[in-house]
Amino acid sequence: MHLVDILVKNATLVTMAPDMPVIEPGAVAVAQDRIAAAGPQQAVLLEYKAAKVIDAKGGIVMPGLVNTHTHAAMSLFRGLADDLPLMTWLEEHIFPAEAELTQDMVYRSTLLACAEMIKSGTTTFCDMYLFEDAVAQAAKQAGLRAVVGEVIYDFASPSYGPVEKGLEYTSALIDKWRRDPLITIAVEPHSPYLCSPDLLQKLKAIADENQAPMVIHLSESQHEVAQIQDKFGKTPPEHLADLGILGPRLIADHCVALTENDITLLKQYDVKVAHNPESNMKLASGIAPIPALLSRGVTVGVGTDGCASNNNLDLFQEMDTLAKLHKVQTLDPTVLDARTVVKMATLDGACVLGLDACIGSLEPGKKADLIIVDVDQPHLVPMYNVYSHLVYTVSGHDVVTAIVNGRILMQDRQLLSLHEEAVMRDVNKIAIKIIKKETE
Amino acid sequence: MHLVDILVKNATLVTMAPDMPVIEPGAVAVAQDRIAAAGPQQAVLLEYKAAKVIDAKGGIVMPGLVNTHTHAAMSLFRGLADDLPLMTWLEEHIFPAEAELTQDMVYRSTLLACAEMIKSGTTTFCDMYLFEDAVAQAAKQAGLRAVVGEVIYDFASPSYGPVEKGLEYTSALIDKWRRDPLITIAVEPHSPYLCSPDLLQKLKAIADENQAPMVIHLSESQHEVAQIQDKFGKTPPEHLADLGILGPRLIADHCVALTENDITLLKQYDVKVAHNPESNMKLASGIAPIPALLSRGVTVGVGTDGCASNNNLDLFQEMDTLAKLHKVQTLDPTVLDARTVVKMATLDGACVLGLDACIGSLEPGKKADLIIVDVDQPHLVPMYNVYSHLVYTVSGHDVVTAIVNGRILMQDRQLLSLHEEAVMRDVNKIAIKIIKKETE
Repeated sequence: MHLVDILVKNATLVTMAPDMPVIEPGAVAVAQDRIAAAGPQQAVLLEYKAAKVIDAKGGIVMPGLVNTHTHAAMSLFRGLADDLPLMTWLEEHIFPAEAELTQDMVYRSTLLACAEMIKSGTTTFCDMYLFEDAVAQAAKQAGLRAVVGEVIYDFASPSYGPVEKGLEYTSALIDKWRRDPLITIAVEPHSPYLCSPDLLQKLKAIADENQAPMVIHLSESQHEVAQIQDKFGKTPPEHLADLGILGPRLIADHCVALTENDITLLKQYDVKVAHNPESNMKLASGIAPIPALLSRGVTVGVGTDGCASNNNLDLFQEMDTLAKLHKVQTLDPTVLDARTVVKMATLDGACVLGLDACIGSLEPGKKADLIIVDVDQPHLVPMYNVYSHLVYTVSGHDVVTAIVNGRILMQDRQLLSLHEEAVMRDVNKIAIKIIKKETE
Repeated sequence: MHLVDILVKNATLVTMAPDMPVIEPGAVAVAQDRIAAAGPQQAVLLEYKAAKVIDAKGGIVMPGLVNTHTHAAMSLFRGLADDLPLMTWLEEHIFPAEAELTQDMVYRSTLLACAEMIKSGTTTFCDMYLFEDAVAQAAKQAGLRAVVGEVIYDFASPSYGPVEKGLEYTSALIDKWRRDPLITIAVEPHSPYLCSPDLLQKLKAIADENQAPMVIHLSESQHEVAQIQDKFGKTPPEHLADLGILGPRLIADHCVALTENDITLLKQYDVKVAHNPESNMKLASGIAPIPALLSRGVTVGVGTDGCASNNNLDLFQEMDTLAKLHKVQTLDPTVLDARTVVKMATLDGACVLGLDACIGSLEPGKKADLIIVDVDQPHLVPMYNVYSHLVYTVSGHDVVTAIVNGRILMQDRQLLSLHEEAVMRDVNKIAIKIIKKETE
């Protein structure tokens, strides 16, 4: 008999380990920051004992969800300006509001996003924004796992100032967080249309030197593709291929407007894709060719994008929309079946972020990032198929418990790592100033 | 000072009355089954007093949502068979399961659907299924407002037997429920492809005689349109127009595959449309031309369809998907703005069901059907625009209180009209038999 830290029992256990069926009743043993065992309850309880036992009461126990693309601090702008043409939205509302941002505003807004993510089952997120040191601090305080990186473009930033300082800021972030158990620093050029070839190559060098992931917005809309075509005579992926930017550590956000050759390039260089269906729909960007990417073997994760274009961080709702969107787009109801979609939001998402050796499934030796979904509710009765439930019926509100790196962040809907009331109050105070500015 | 039954105070009040802004703080006075007043708090509290005062604590108080198309009892089949070709789904799973249905199974499954609807903010639903007397009884017991009708087609039904008995069953339903304050009986031919012209006209006569609404599935997919074209040389709406079936009391479900002339016909006859975006996506039926219908002045409500093709009854999530789907379909982010979508799910939905004189907005003299949404949660902070919140961020779980016809059905997430545990347990028992049958 081994003594561990946490035992989760009475689980409908979805491990997402390859070829592993749903185990019922299942149990998970957590020792320090890792999973010691995940399997049939009888076997696990025979071998492990813990002071802290969590009864899942038949609920679904599964890997925490991985949000492969967001701008967490943009929760501050949730619903500030919707249903507008893209350029009006950006130039008249988002950019002016962002010009006023401070490190403190980003920190407090990211804490709010973390509270929402924990409460909706996300345990890892990949962030791109300004003042990312504050984002890393907020994620760490909340106890979430995160890949974060300062957004870099050719012009000056409200955060670091001129572009050269952006490179320094990124290198300093990498040094500061190198040994952190939760935070990974990424190198993050905004996009091919806001970054010169020279800047892209300088950032690629920093990423290579540090074996760091690189994150970029890529081919989000036909408009963007036309811009790059006009300037360089190539599609954005072709442009990046010629500059030597494509590679297995590159995380390409959106990939809505792709040619056949673009898909070939993404596969050839093993580029990872973050798919954001709700944001692409709300901003009317288009529908990414996900079934084609998957059939070609490209790894695709799920993202919410920021709250200004979604307007929530609920990955369960995102899975639902994702599965349905591609069915109606292809007129094929068998496309993107429920298990495939759950895999995209867990194991494949972990792979997108380069973390699949560490998270994404409940297997012995992996980090203990898991959630419990309460299925004893009218909208979740009856349950014939666990994967169908997770995609088409469960929403983030049904998550009752969240554990990251062996630490319990939420139990029975109570946040343990954050003071929920204070987090909301702080952001509401900042929002009052934004409303004043908007109505001036 | 007037004494009323219920006062709701400290509301962010969304009345959906024409041209009425959001009122904050607002209050609503409920006397018996009706709204006595809905307006600025100070004025309402000066004039009204009640023994029962509900503090909305700044939450959104709004009309209950109207689900214009569902098959409530199909909650029993939630997730039974997903991601399959339409005919496999229907012929190998749904039809065999439905052949075994009894009045009692429909009653208990509808109670479950009612529990889910109350807990997600729906106060009125329009149902089409078998054993609809049981559906009416379940809705009445739950306290929900409902338009219900027995589905009729050319072949025998597991409920009433041969088709002639279906006409008798419908007439008997109309007689039985004629004076009920919550239940309206509709005449419900399944579709042009399962009902002969003769049957359609007989049912139309019953509807006209009783001034009853008529509900029909119409042009749900291109496949169905091709069937009718082959048989009658016309589109389904043209076919119904020629048979004299179109009219202002006709509720046409889906309307996915419409021609320009179909839209003209729907407008000309003032036919009402129930739009079910998530079901149409999941079954890969197609995308209904809602922006075109709205611009031509056709009244469109929102529906979830049954839980076998959704797989939930959450109209807040349906609004979110609806608003986003048509933006990406038209590549125009200004299409179906948030207020328009909220109106579709409330006042327009009421109009679709012929109930807009009675419900759909919070105005003095209308029936007291209202809900409270708790906005003091991380995913709902900050709040710049109430309509944006309702469409893009709120989900059914955020509804804390529901009142229908002046009766409190849920307060602080506790169901008062139904025994939630018993309702779930009963359906789980039936589901066990269905699983046995499926695995035989």
